[in-house]
Amino acid sequence: MASIKIAMENHLNSLTKPLGSLGNLESYCVKMAEIQKRVPPKIEKKGVYVFAGDHGVAVEGVSLYPQEVTRQMAINILTGGAGINALAGGTGWDVILVDSGVCGDDFPADSEIKPVCPFMRERIRHGSGNCLRESAMSAEETARAFERGNSLAHNAVDRGYDMVALGDLGIGNTTTASAMLAAAGFSAASVVDRGTGIDSAMLEHKRNVVEQAVRRANVPPCDGKAILRELGSPDFAMMAGFILGLEGTGVACVLDGFPVTSAAFMAWLINPKICEWLFAGHLSRVAGHKPVLERMGLEPVVDLSMRLGEGTGAVIGGYIVELGVLAARQMASFAKAGISGSSAIEEKF
Amino acid sequence: MASIKIAMENHLNSLTKPLGSLGNLESYCVKMAEIQKRVPPKIEKKGVYVFAGDHGVAVEGVSLYPQEVTRQMAINILTGGAGINALAGGTGWDVILVDSGVCGDDFPADSEIKPVCPFMRERIRHGSGNCLRESAMSAEETARAFERGNSLAHNAVDRGYDMVALGDLGIGNTTTASAMLAAAGFSAASVVDRGTGIDSAMLEHKRNVVEQAVRRANVPPCDGKAILRELGSPDFAMMAGFILGLEGTGVACVLDGFPVTSAAFMAWLINPKICEWLFAGHLSRVAGHKPVLERMGLEPVVDLSMRLGEGTGAVIGGYIVELGVLAARQMASFAKAGISGSSAIEEKF
Repeated sequence: MASIKIAMENHLNSLTKPLGSLGNLESYCVKMAEIQKRVPPKIEKKGVYVFAGDHGVAVEGVSLYPQEVTRQMAINILTGGAGINALAGGTGWDVILVDSGVCGDDFPADSEIKPVCPFMRERIRHGSGNCLRESAMSAEETARAFERGNSLAHNAVDRGYDMVALGDLGIGNTTTASAMLAAAGFSAASVVDRGTGIDSAMLEHKRNVVEQAVRRANVPPCDGKAILRELGSPDFAMMAGFILGLEGTGVACVLDGFPVTSAAFMAWLINPKICEWLFAGHLSRVAGHKPVLERMGLEPVVDLSMRLGEGTGAVIGGYIVELGVLAARQMASFAKAGISGSSAIEEKF
Repeated sequence: MASIKIAMENHLNSLTKPLGSLGNLESYCVKMAEIQKRVPPKIEKKGVYVFAGDHGVAVEGVSLYPQEVTRQMAINILTGGAGINALAGGTGWDVILVDSGVCGDDFPADSEIKPVCPFMRERIRHGSGNCLRESAMSAEETARAFERGNSLAHNAVDRGYDMVALGDLGIGNTTTASAMLAAAGFSAASVVDRGTGIDSAMLEHKRNVVEQAVRRANVPPCDGKAILRELGSPDFAMMAGFILGLEGTGVACVLDGFPVTSAAFMAWLINPKICEWLFAGHLSRVAGHKPVLERMGLEPVVDLSMRLGEGTGAVIGGYIVELGVLAARQMASFAKAGISGSSAIEEKF
């Protein structure tokens, strides 16, 4: 890996720009080169996987939106009307919707729906259990969600993606994410936030729900799989399995905001090597996002105060990584352009 | 204007996402709507104008690169090998190279050069005067540079650009930019930095050059035109004229890093209303950039630790503004998607 890093840096230093002047774009290039073991790396095909699932804890009144919105928004993605459709379209990502565990009938049931994007039917169960009162999933369901996530990762490789991004969709999922992190040792105060926009009274209630759920679960703080089983959901477990399944594939993975990063944190407890192929696409406005990224040692690409989910921050951040790769591939070298070097550059070459 | 802002906010709030969850992308949309007086705004055509010019102060040994690099890099842009070509190409901007005042023969002289982008021959003079010892330009040259910048702004409107970006190219231009800002009242310590990568001894020398140049110039700190004449350059004066010339055209303008922002600051001293149509594309790694943006009240879109110039940060930031507009134009409304609203949303609609 060290020689790939040096080869990539030498390539970047040979290009017609002051040394290091592409800043973070250069670091992203080096990381992509290490992931792909290729100098310069390439990003030709990208896919954002949006994992949709319902969260049983939604019945506790922790969100402004009713649970049926998960299903409605999933259909909105399938028909191209959601934020992720616009932003992925504008930045060259395919959108793939994964039903990991939405409640209610399978969909699209309505024959008038013409999906504009691939749809993966991977429903493990109809929503997770209400983690305040019961396990979110059984051990068998948890194992199956991991296995299906792993399988989707290999599907992404087969589809030829150089880079994937993860998005989340599910009413109540910030509560579940907070509970998982609280069980992993973060203080509830640092990881419970307003989600889709709740007021102070609901926030206080949400914090109580999180603390009680963590007490009920009573899981070891370093056992990512047990935390996902007791407090997580099929969609989060599938994301974790997906990230772990990318090991050794040469495919980079871009995280979105708080829910996705919380699922990634559970995968990180299982295998901290995952950071080698992860990028943090953005820093979300959700308060708990920052401490989790910091614990994993990931620096977000952009901070645009977004908190939409669906992978919307990930596709923007991932696109900036791609721009770095594009510059590394397209720029002329000093030698080719016949440009006089600086004294600093002449020393290096 | 107030009614445009409210109409744009109502439009954004009707879209299938939690209220305000697109964060800064929503603010950019509102600003674009106000600039264009259109809800939602549109961004279909974008052009980055790179103003190339030599800076007489380069002979004082303030840069690692010899002055001939300005001309070589201009030809590199014309032939598509520069950073701005790659990054503008990746984000859908046309590149327009403007020769405002490069030294030496007119170019391209070499018949083998096949320009890949439009080239505007607007040379006011062969490089600016060395501001340490003489005026950078005469009053007539300054007026002509402003007038040509103004004319280029109208040319951008005629070309149908909804958004333009400004880029800089010129060995020694961070020294000139620092001198202009020091003359406008910023402390030399806060606005002199390493440019293309000089060491501490050269940095100390550069600071002395800046301080002596400001003493020689002896201009009133609020007279942007006089500062440009004594300490600036044709390229900076042309940028200032360009920005001022966009007033009332409905075309938004994205600033790049330290040199471009310094030129914009001189325009701001002349007419502070320019901020109504300006975006700060990025925060550069050059130390002096931040205090100038803060004085103008502009928040950078991204911070990627870049310091390449040529408009490379501007095209990335401007592209993110465009993504906000794209989302506002393409997303479905709650009503159209048949999605249950939140209580907060039902109150508003």
